[in-house]
Amino acid sequence: MNLIDRVIQEIARLPGLGRKSAARITYHLLEAESQKVTALLEAIRHMKSGIRFCSICGNYAETDPCGVCNDPSRDQSVICVIEEAKDIQTIEATREFTGLYHVLGGVISPLHGIGPADLRITELVSRVRNGSIREVIVATNPTVEGDTTALYVGNLLKDTNVNVSRIALGLPVGGDLEYADRLTLSQALKGRIRL
Amino acid sequence: MNLIDRVIQEIARLPGLGRKSAARITYHLLEAESQKVTALLEAIRHMKSGIRFCSICGNYAETDPCGVCNDPSRDQSVICVIEEAKDIQTIEATREFTGLYHVLGGVISPLHGIGPADLRITELVSRVRNGSIREVIVATNPTVEGDTTALYVGNLLKDTNVNVSRIALGLPVGGDLEYADRLTLSQALKGRIRL
Repeated sequence: MNLIDRVIQEIARLPGLGRKSAARITYHLLEAESQKVTALLEAIRHMKSGIRFCSICGNYAETDPCGVCNDPSRDQSVICVIEEAKDIQTIEATREFTGLYHVLGGVISPLHGIGPADLRITELVSRVRNGSIREVIVATNPTVEGDTTALYVGNLLKDTNVNVSRIALGLPVGGDLEYADRLTLSQALKGRIRL
Repeated sequence: MNLIDRVIQEIARLPGLGRKSAARITYHLLEAESQKVTALLEAIRHMKSGIRFCSICGNYAETDPCGVCNDPSRDQSVICVIEEAKDIQTIEATREFTGLYHVLGGVISPLHGIGPADLRITELVSRVRNGSIREVIVATNPTVEGDTTALYVGNLLKDTNVNVSRIALGLPVGGDLEYADRLTLSQALKGRIRL
């Protein structure tokens, strides 16, 4: 295989890219200044060697504890539980949450052989029991596995004094009743909020 | 800026990728085995350092002349003229063309200050005059600039004994008359072929 096809093949393996977009990117790299391509390669190399996991929350971090856990201005009494470390960035982008995080590292999924013991659930329970936590917000995805995991976490924390909540399910902003699926609409009705 | 944001920013600069897809790819790289990421980076680095231009046709090549120009099984009497080197791969994928190529390196575009002298047109004319070329197929894009360039090349080669043709414009296969734009449909009518 030639050098160009090799790169197209490697890039086509990345998520969300097919062969055509991979080819487009490859030719872009081929035509780009060497200096710019080197900057990209170096950034990836540095990231791979410099990123570790925060031992407290499981976030990606350059330091341990991570920047979020280490930030004294954040609310130390609220923990948002998420599936993956990358979800932190999505929630941070809303600027609505100023507490701490806890990354489970996945969801309970018997079909894929993933049980509670494979997730960072014990760590969550001991954080809640040993700390001054007031509230736990479970923000796993609105899927069967995400809901199951949320229920499981809720049950485990039932005998603590902590408020456990789940982020709301309902219509997306800008959505249309007509195009909402039945399950989403029924969750939106159940989760109605007094005006 | 942290290591992860740095990579997201670099990847978001690639064609066809926005911030969200760049983030998705970045986290994929973060979670992938180091060995696989290294394979990707090495493939790009090798491509950048190993690829040169074929001095005959202007194709990307690991050798000079390139694999196409060097292939004795290809028809040495037909040249397909294209805008960019990457177009070769698109045409090769059809398996319909077995001749040689000539990369112009762009199109005549007075708006962008690109004239015939900025393209590899002189090289094309001398290839045609000095070689045993029978036919030149102009496969520039069906745009104003592509058409202008095709006409220009056609005029230059008028006094040679070479057949100069332009690839057909018309309805795309699987298309629908109803959704064809007026210009395409009028080209399809003009270019009608006797059954």
